[in-house]
Amino acid sequence: MTETSLVDSETVERLLTTPAYHRWLGLELVRAAPGEVEIAMDCRDELTADVDGSYVHGGILATLLDVAGDFALVTELGVGLPTIDLRVDYLRPARPGDRLLAVGTVVRRGRSLGVADAVVTNGDGKKLAVARGLYSTAAA
Amino acid sequence: MTETSLVDSETVERLLTTPAYHRWLGLELVRAAPGEVEIAMDCRDELTADVDGSYVHGGILATLLDVAGDFALVTELGVGLPTIDLRVDYLRPARPGDRLLAVGTVVRRGRSLGVADAVVTNGDGKKLAVARGLYSTAAA
Amino acid sequence: MTETSLVDSETVERLLTTPAYHRWLGLELVRAAPGEVEIAMDCRDELTADVDGSYVHGGILATLLDVAGDFALVTELGVGLPTIDLRVDYLRPARPGDRLLAVGTVVRRGRSLGVADAVVTNGDGKKLAVARGLYSTAAA
Amino acid sequence: MTETSLVDSETVERLLTTPAYHRWLGLELVRAAPGEVEIAMDCRDELTADVDGSYVHGGILATLLDVAGDFALVTELGVGLPTIDLRVDYLRPARPGDRLLAVGTVVRRGRSLGVADAVVTNGDGKKLAVARGLYSTAAA
Repeated sequence: MTETSLVDSETVERLLTTPAYHRWLGLELVRAAPGEVEIAMDCRDELTADVDGSYVHGGILATLLDVAGDFALVTELGVGLPTIDLRVDYLRPARPGDRLLAVGTVVRRGRSLGVADAVVTNGDGKKLAVARGLYSTAAA
Repeated sequence: MTETSLVDSETVERLLTTPAYHRWLGLELVRAAPGEVEIAMDCRDELTADVDGSYVHGGILATLLDVAGDFALVTELGVGLPTIDLRVDYLRPARPGDRLLAVGTVVRRGRSLGVADAVVTNGDGKKLAVARGLYSTAAA
Repeated sequence: MTETSLVDSETVERLLTTPAYHRWLGLELVRAAPGEVEIAMDCRDELTADVDGSYVHGGILATLLDVAGDFALVTELGVGLPTIDLRVDYLRPARPGDRLLAVGTVVRRGRSLGVADAVVTNGDGKKLAVARGLYSTAAA
Repeated sequence: MTETSLVDSETVERLLTTPAYHRWLGLELVRAAPGEVEIAMDCRDELTADVDGSYVHGGILATLLDVAGDFALVTELGVGLPTIDLRVDYLRPARPGDRLLAVGTVVRRGRSLGVADAVVTNGDGKKLAVARGLYSTAAA
């Protein structure tokens, strides 16, 4: 598709790293290709969900997975897309100190709707969580 | 059930407001009853997801919904529960400045698994997002 | 809304009971009101999923829940709607001989998308499964 | 894992083709390997969901996806597993006359819970629907 080649990595990176909450999380663009994206982030202590600070909040993983799915479509469409729904499966907890890698992949890109998958792994390459999201491509 | 009466609001509030990420979000316990909980939070500018800072990140709503579903079960079990999976439907964007109210309700509490629903509304009472989560009750 | 009053029960019933697979399942319209519908079906032995024929296939419950969510929107829109995605939680097995009652309720009806909830209970009023579906309202 | 080699294709096929509803659907085992399974079925006219009989009921796809995910785990565990929850994304309608192929793959197999993915394609190799399910492995 012609239009997918128009989205350069600089645009994807700017859209990823400018929003306030993305900056607070420290999201980094590792790689962008048409329909696929890799994003990294480091788990700080202030992201923990329990009284003992032993594991990272599932909402952080959900956020990272949502962003990865969204940006898989961004690589083809060049604009951020509203998430319509998101489903997350938690497989193993993330720990403070973990460097997380999220890979997002387009499953289907339609004129009004897009589906994308996302996987988060830790530094050992263990899958921590997987997600599938539905995004609105109508505004793109 | 006898054991549900053992979880007092102080315990629920301590579990809610002690974790680092919950404190950063500013989660507040509004009300706790057996199988139901209400949690509030204010949307700061640093929670926004777009370049213009016009709307709050969906991952924040996912986090709040996850916590509300989890704490609906906490009111009956007295300990935080691992989320197994979570499904979020986004209905309307949250805006910076919004005060969000999340209501979590137990759908089913089994010996090893619990299902809970959660709804987030804004100050006008508009539904912004709904979720359903599956939680592990085995450790409780 | 004016248009919701235009969908009479006869139209809803015809849309429900004409399709071939609905007839094979024996779906019956119990009640239709704007945004809400009740559908019944009897569980025959040929719907079982295990070697011993002891429980009804989860796919049957998924189908009934999907239809209930869809027809909650049909009561307002007067046409069948494509399901975009569906999420089912199984709480208890249905048994051959059970008479199932499915209640579908509109969560949100937008111009292009609708969200509906559905619950299936058995004759004892026990919840067997719950679902939430996203439907395309664009063609309505 | 030693135990995965104990599940021979005959056992998988017997578990797949004996249940009454599976027989009615005409499910066929195409291939079974540890953690992966392929299942085929033909779409008869009586599986249609609309008044015109133009497309196959989404509940049929949901059933096929559920079975494919379940049997991906059956190839490793040798017994049918209860579905805890299932999430289906519909991408394109199936038509009467289509021969469907469902591939199920294990995402994670734990002691009490298993996650599996499933994809249904038609004879042209087009993806019609994808799903992710959570299954109870506790009884296996």
